Amino acid sequence: MKITILTIFPEMFDGFLNTSIIKKARLKNIVEINVADFRQYTLDKHNRVDEYPFGGGQGMVLMCQPLLDCLNDVRSEKSHVILMNPSGKTFDQPKAHQLLDYEDIVIICGHYEGYDARISDYVDEEISIGDYILTGGELGAMVVTDAITRLVDGVISADSTRDETFENGLLEYPQYTKPVEYDGKKVPDVLLSGHHENIRKYRLYESLKKTYLYRRDLLEKRDFTDEERKMLEKIKEEINDKEEDNS
Amino acid sequence: MKITILTIFPEMFDGFLNTSIIKKARLKNIVEINVADFRQYTLDKHNRVDEYPFGGGQGMVLMCQPLLDCLNDVRSEKSHVILMNPSGKTFDQPKAHQLLDYEDIVIICGHYEGYDARISDYVDEEISIGDYILTGGELGAMVVTDAITRLVDGVISADSTRDETFENGLLEYPQYTKPVEYDGKKVPDVLLSGHHENIRKYRLYESLKKTYLYRRDLLEKRDFTDEERKMLEKIKEEINDKEEDNS
Repeated sequence: MKITILTIFPEMFDGFLNTSIIKKARLKNIVEINVADFRQYTLDKHNRVDEYPFGGGQGMVLMCQPLLDCLNDVRSEKSHVILMNPSGKTFDQPKAHQLLDYEDIVIICGHYEGYDARISDYVDEEISIGDYILTGGELGAMVVTDAITRLVDGVISADSTRDETFENGLLEYPQYTKPVEYDGKKVPDVLLSGHHENIRKYRLYESLKKTYLYRRDLLEKRDFTDEERKMLEKIKEEINDKEEDNS
Repeated sequence: MKITILTIFPEMFDGFLNTSIIKKARLKNIVEINVADFRQYTLDKHNRVDEYPFGGGQGMVLMCQPLLDCLNDVRSEKSHVILMNPSGKTFDQPKAHQLLDYEDIVIICGHYEGYDARISDYVDEEISIGDYILTGGELGAMVVTDAITRLVDGVISADSTRDETFENGLLEYPQYTKPVEYDGKKVPDVLLSGHHENIRKYRLYESLKKTYLYRRDLLEKRDFTDEERKMLEKIKEEINDKEEDNS
């Protein structure tokens, strides 16, 4: 997997590329990540990459020329080109898995007010990481790169990603580690019991309950086993009882 | 506004803190951003901050002690404490505005499989930046910090944020800058006309159309003016006509 990031702030990526799992994946040569500075491609004598928008308005707009000349230089026939854009399709875990199909991904980060709209004609898709506005696309490019990289074979163990939030359509169950008691708060007995089947049931129940309480929208997208369906009924009763007690 | 970030990878923030708008806001002393390494608080003789989960399972879980000792050290009575967590409430632009009310924000980044669930008892809220899994909370903390910082008075001009995507509940209209023609693609005539009212109408129409095409969910959350309502009717007709032509 090769990922090339186009930005005018390449130094912003130094810490990201040299920390933790991204660093390991790069050192193992499982993932190659390059950062290209498209300011170096500008033909403007003042080195500008942006200009005022036609029709007036605040802020500056990235011009076609430097960005697209840089893109032409780094892209190959195999490249899948992504433009980070708050107006794009919202990134999620299924999308991260889907992007694994490409050997060569190019991610374009904007800055300032936005892009010349004609740039859209030269990319394969536009992606947003969420419904908020950031200074530029750099953090978005890091998010997409991180989410993909950790799914690439050999980066982290497959078991480790399987139970995570969103991978099975549910929020993750609560985890506990040493000590058994902290500040008067104890680890649930079942987790200390060594009874694997009870632990599995406890975790599934808590996972369903957390999702029901905080992200009911995730449940609507998901099919359930009989066991899960019965647990959900119980969870609804439990929560309704509590709400009646409080009223 | 003071933001303190708790992490075991402080070096990951160097580029972020020293680039563009975040750098300017810090140099102008409008926003103070500190990064605290909670590994320095561990009482473990091997400097560990994580341990295997009770009840078995893959991966390591962050322990209460180092993180919470660090939190106690940096928090004040005014602190609003946020835990970055994929199971948390999804961050969005209204949330960014809401967080502006706090003078002092502490953001905790996890790493590894997750946190000891008891840590939740010591924070004010848990936030996720989207439905995807990242190596740690560091990118999330940067996203939240960036989204808030650019809204703080004096960081960027208020006019500049007003028309952006999400600020008015719509995707942003397309922008164009020099040259008038690029690779055979021309800027729409209306933007070159100098006719302010027509430009305003064009932009509102395109903004509504883009939102209707790509993010209809945003329209459901929003009230409309009479002008917008009429435009939306026209947009629906335009799109239906196209769909009929294609069928």
